[in-house]
Amino acid sequence: MALNEFSLIEKFFNREISPGHGVVQSIGDDCAIVEVPNGYQLAISIDSLIAGVHFPEHSKAYDIGYKALAVNLSDCAAMGATPLWATLALTLPKPDETWLKDFAEGFFVMANSAQVSLIGGDTTQGPLAITIQIHGILPKGKALLRSSAKIGDDVYVTGTLGDAGLALQTILGKLPKLETDSQNYIESRLNKPTARLKTGQALLDIAHACIDISDGLAADLQHILTASKVGAEIELDQLPLSSILLGLEKSQAINLALHSGDDYELCFTAPIEMRQKIEAISNLSHTPITKIGRIIEDTGLFGIADKQRLAIKPKGYVHFT
Amino acid sequence: MALNEFSLIEKFFNREISPGHGVVQSIGDDCAIVEVPNGYQLAISIDSLIAGVHFPEHSKAYDIGYKALAVNLSDCAAMGATPLWATLALTLPKPDETWLKDFAEGFFVMANSAQVSLIGGDTTQGPLAITIQIHGILPKGKALLRSSAKIGDDVYVTGTLGDAGLALQTILGKLPKLETDSQNYIESRLNKPTARLKTGQALLDIAHACIDISDGLAADLQHILTASKVGAEIELDQLPLSSILLGLEKSQAINLALHSGDDYELCFTAPIEMRQKIEAISNLSHTPITKIGRIIEDTGLFGIADKQRLAIKPKGYVHFT
Repeated sequence: MALNEFSLIEKFFNREISPGHGVVQSIGDDCAIVEVPNGYQLAISIDSLIAGVHFPEHSKAYDIGYKALAVNLSDCAAMGATPLWATLALTLPKPDETWLKDFAEGFFVMANSAQVSLIGGDTTQGPLAITIQIHGILPKGKALLRSSAKIGDDVYVTGTLGDAGLALQTILGKLPKLETDSQNYIESRLNKPTARLKTGQALLDIAHACIDISDGLAADLQHILTASKVGAEIELDQLPLSSILLGLEKSQAINLALHSGDDYELCFTAPIEMRQKIEAISNLSHTPITKIGRIIEDTGLFGIADKQRLAIKPKGYVHFT
Repeated sequence: MALNEFSLIEKFFNREISPGHGVVQSIGDDCAIVEVPNGYQLAISIDSLIAGVHFPEHSKAYDIGYKALAVNLSDCAAMGATPLWATLALTLPKPDETWLKDFAEGFFVMANSAQVSLIGGDTTQGPLAITIQIHGILPKGKALLRSSAKIGDDVYVTGTLGDAGLALQTILGKLPKLETDSQNYIESRLNKPTARLKTGQALLDIAHACIDISDGLAADLQHILTASKVGAEIELDQLPLSSILLGLEKSQAINLALHSGDDYELCFTAPIEMRQKIEAISNLSHTPITKIGRIIEDTGLFGIADKQRLAIKPKGYVHFT
């Protein structure tokens, strides 16, 4: 029997996540239908992962499914939104049932953990690519925009920076692999990023601007600075590093933290009077939050180290270089 | 200068469609933010077009942009929804500015005509593929679902059937090309389908079930029959054919009308007492609507011709055959 588009979607992806908040019509009609609660706005983000560009061709299907959803959820986290619904456009060379089963497994582990329902999709034949769109809700007018940073704000990041970048360098053979436990840890940071949803939601009414770090702290913080027409100073000694990065040569570790992508931590700004509240959010959401610098009037991004101030150029991953 | 993701999206796709209904934050942040009006539900559909699968590799960029949006709008039409917002995930081998300009031109001609805003996107490097998600609004509980056909309903289709299929056959060299005017007409039916938005919206509270014909009348009507647990009889002599198909041998024309896809006409069912209203909708929306059969209790799809009744097997395009 031919596995057509409909049966692929039905067979592997038609799982109900209880209770399916606001889902009126899920997979199986021309459109899905959902209901946004009164007083809320809808936050929407779409991202594609292409084999050979965003992940190695032979990555584990489970990891691809997991990460493809996680990076979309991270966009919701960066707005402070609560994700509710996902759609999936999946292009694959042939209907490999084992691959699909593993992909769906990874996808739904992430979906269940975030309480997100898959409400629609499209399966097509072609070179392996995954496009996911995520839909979250936000109390009206509360979104954490890139353009809201104010001069004098503190600059914060969640978690630690550079682990995923180090993992990628070791996988690409540009740096030697670490001993097993450490290698496993950094690879899990690359393959199974944590979308900081609870932290993002808790930052509504507290943070000013927010972004998730997909291309590297320098490149992504620069998006906030550009949108807000301000600059920032970063204390390079304050960058939060895992014990593994602390074991590297210092300038290598700082460069990984500044310039490597795929960490999917949040970078946000908040007024000084919110410091205590932010500490409380860190405790309540069990998420390390580190103050790394401040927003300044001079446009540009500067690093402070040994009382010296140097301009930092974004070197985030640029498509089509 | 490297054309990165951001500048691609910014340069070609950041156009404001006045007045941008309900758009709070468009392209340029982690998520777009929109507002669904009170009393309405959100209808969502995602579709991918892959080069070499859904369109020939060297199709005109303008036509690809136009059709990619049109087929998504057609899903909205099939629910009776009013499309408001689109997102675009575009994967292309290299940042070809001429191609992008033409693609954007086709996309925005369709978007302007339907008053749809592009609110977000992602541009990635890889084999040419276009994924579009469309977002429409619907008065609560009014959607035209596939599962709502009732025994005794009339079955209708809009426009004419089989023109796009004939065009594809001639382009693939399976049938000889027609004289210029006719060939141009059928190719425009293939490349620039009309999403029947006004008709779909007018059918709320009038039609029962509705679907758009992407895989062929037989295959798509069968989706309604399966979801509604009913059958249908179609009068084969009543199938609406363009003058071009009327010029073909009769059984060839009927097979094209039944089994070729890409027409993006609507097929819907409605109770007999709505016949006059449907005629009025046809006149008001300047869209031919033809009654072609009826919903019956026996499951299955049957064709009536010369007082004979024969079972029709869906032969719509199936991925991965």
